[in-house]
Amino acid sequence: MNTQVAIIGAGPSGLLLGQLLAIQGIDSVILERVSGDYVLGRIRAGILERGLVDLVREAGVAERMDREGEVHEGFEISIDGQCAHIDLRALTGGKTVLCYGQTEITRDLMQARSKAGLSTYYEAADVALHDVQSERPWVTFARGDRRYRLNCDYIAGCDGFHGVSRKTIPEDKRTEYEKVYPFGWLGLLSDTPPVADELIYCKSERGFALASRRSATRSRYYLQVPLTDRVENWSDEAFWQELKRRLPATAADKLVTGASLEKSIAPLRSFVCEPMQYGRLFLVGDAAHIVPPTGAKGLNLAASDVAVLYQILTRVYRENDSTCTSRYSEIALRRVWHGERFSWWMSNMLHDFNGYEISGMGDSSFERFMNSELDYYLNSEEGRKVIANQYVGLPFQSLE
Amino acid sequence: MNTQVAIIGAGPSGLLLGQLLAIQGIDSVILERVSGDYVLGRIRAGILERGLVDLVREAGVAERMDREGEVHEGFEISIDGQCAHIDLRALTGGKTVLCYGQTEITRDLMQARSKAGLSTYYEAADVALHDVQSERPWVTFARGDRRYRLNCDYIAGCDGFHGVSRKTIPEDKRTEYEKVYPFGWLGLLSDTPPVADELIYCKSERGFALASRRSATRSRYYLQVPLTDRVENWSDEAFWQELKRRLPATAADKLVTGASLEKSIAPLRSFVCEPMQYGRLFLVGDAAHIVPPTGAKGLNLAASDVAVLYQILTRVYRENDSTCTSRYSEIALRRVWHGERFSWWMSNMLHDFNGYEISGMGDSSFERFMNSELDYYLNSEEGRKVIANQYVGLPFQSLE
Repeated sequence: MNTQVAIIGAGPSGLLLGQLLAIQGIDSVILERVSGDYVLGRIRAGILERGLVDLVREAGVAERMDREGEVHEGFEISIDGQCAHIDLRALTGGKTVLCYGQTEITRDLMQARSKAGLSTYYEAADVALHDVQSERPWVTFARGDRRYRLNCDYIAGCDGFHGVSRKTIPEDKRTEYEKVYPFGWLGLLSDTPPVADELIYCKSERGFALASRRSATRSRYYLQVPLTDRVENWSDEAFWQELKRRLPATAADKLVTGASLEKSIAPLRSFVCEPMQYGRLFLVGDAAHIVPPTGAKGLNLAASDVAVLYQILTRVYRENDSTCTSRYSEIALRRVWHGERFSWWMSNMLHDFNGYEISGMGDSSFERFMNSELDYYLNSEEGRKVIANQYVGLPFQSLE
Repeated sequence: MNTQVAIIGAGPSGLLLGQLLAIQGIDSVILERVSGDYVLGRIRAGILERGLVDLVREAGVAERMDREGEVHEGFEISIDGQCAHIDLRALTGGKTVLCYGQTEITRDLMQARSKAGLSTYYEAADVALHDVQSERPWVTFARGDRRYRLNCDYIAGCDGFHGVSRKTIPEDKRTEYEKVYPFGWLGLLSDTPPVADELIYCKSERGFALASRRSATRSRYYLQVPLTDRVENWSDEAFWQELKRRLPATAADKLVTGASLEKSIAPLRSFVCEPMQYGRLFLVGDAAHIVPPTGAKGLNLAASDVAVLYQILTRVYRENDSTCTSRYSEIALRRVWHGERFSWWMSNMLHDFNGYEISGMGDSSFERFMNSELDYYLNSEEGRKVIANQYVGLPFQSLE
């Protein structure tokens, strides 16, 4: 088999890149280790920056997103029950975010790809990348007993943190930066009306909580829990009780509880791999970087990688200029680090670090610094603008 | 001897407090461990926030400061030779800082105190505070062979980090937060024309440097150096050569070198003692908190403590209301932590941490975060406002 761009991974990044390339007449084949249903079973965040929304529109897959997505003009930060409103529209000169589940985007993109008759191989096992430093890289994989070889010009590694793409870069050719936080997020999804129209980020003495939503009838809530906690030990009832204690009273009073559709504990991680390219292999999204979910930057950072790679590959094939490929990592990383820094900062400010081993001026002073940080940033116009402008997302990087 | 307020320490905080109290007809006695000349021999920073300037004016000691002080409307941040201008006046809605040496303020205050015939005991040895939790605290000290007892209503501990005041608070009644940085500042004072009209904070691969000034003919420069360095090993010549390498080219070209009037290495420290009061003892300035000099907050934080204590003591004596005294620590600390946080942040962003053991996501990622921080804050309007508003100083806290 031959293609122009081999895309490893059929998550939202890989699918979005494939759809964009197709518009430019650039051929791609997607290889995905698991099944399509498995991919759609992953529950992820749902706050989309404008840059991502625009990209989905450009890909021609925005019809349902534009119909069902909720425009969020702000969010709340609650500190020990006292709420501060971050008015995104007012603070950013008109920008907002769109609330639409990552799973839904993935579904829309899958359907569009299928409808367009573009090649995707699900349940592709033993994916291996070859000769990525040459001008003719190739990929091998297996389905059942059959083995395949896919020849290509370029490879987009969209296969996440545990994927094969990053590991294909020799260890001495990449630097990895990592921070694992001493706590995780216990998430619960339920078909109950959310407590509020906007998200509420809650800092409380009992730990962080997030009241999030997918729609008017579907809620997504999170609790900061020690990494030693096990999801089996958290009954739905225990979750709702604890959530109620961390929410501001006005929200707690409105809390409607119900059976969980999904419940899981995710660790928080900051991770960056530099560079994000090696020969003709480009890492995209989680394959190159992970952020803690505080700040909702995961998918949005992946989208900005896609935007950069899309510009580069378009120039390669439409203008026959391949010199720009060497700039992918440098351009993408600048925005990646902004997102990493923002996510790290929001995580530091909003979580409870009492009793956890942490960095800073000494454990307890770190907490004092973060309280002072929230005090200053929430109570000054310029501070709220710093939060708001980064939350709606810094502008996507351009090739020029 | 009797007085209303015993002030320990004749540095700028103690002297300013005494001067303000005198205006309200409140009697004070100042005890100082060393001689007046020794106090005036200390070289300190010289960037005054508006709040401090107003307080010096209120104390009636502003005549020379207003005549000789230089209004600074901005400063430069140079990153590897690329300069970004922080236009304080434009970014803060008209606020500026005043460049006037701390030593000069101290001299002006000493002269005013002497002229007003207010009691100051220099070279007061063995100062000890007694019964500070009672309604009648007292202080003992010695001068030569003579021992003295000073009875008072309140004690203001303005005797710095190494003073006796903080240590009078039992260890189990205070919490101390401390961070010692892995480098120091080598400072050089010289009677040479400064390289620029404004301060230049320089981040370079060779380490941080600050081009500061006291007047049109007196310069003050600093270099980040390892804590293991000794001042004896730095000749003036070596200092000037290294400074030249860290300054942006436009400034390096204008550098006029000359003999040093003073040269010393100071460690960088973040330190806070909570609470800042114990019974009738109030800690003021360096006695309760230390900041690294990046951001010029040391004297300014002391001034905001003075402002709070001045308001409280005025209410005690003029309105016969002593209930407000219990609020000193809480009110002062909020602003102290803002200054501590800003100084920590500026220090983190501008110094070179390569090869030093540091906190954060891991050594090298901390540097990446800080580079991204500078990139975002210097290249966004809201980011520059965050720097500028904190540099000119957040508003002084009021008792109400």
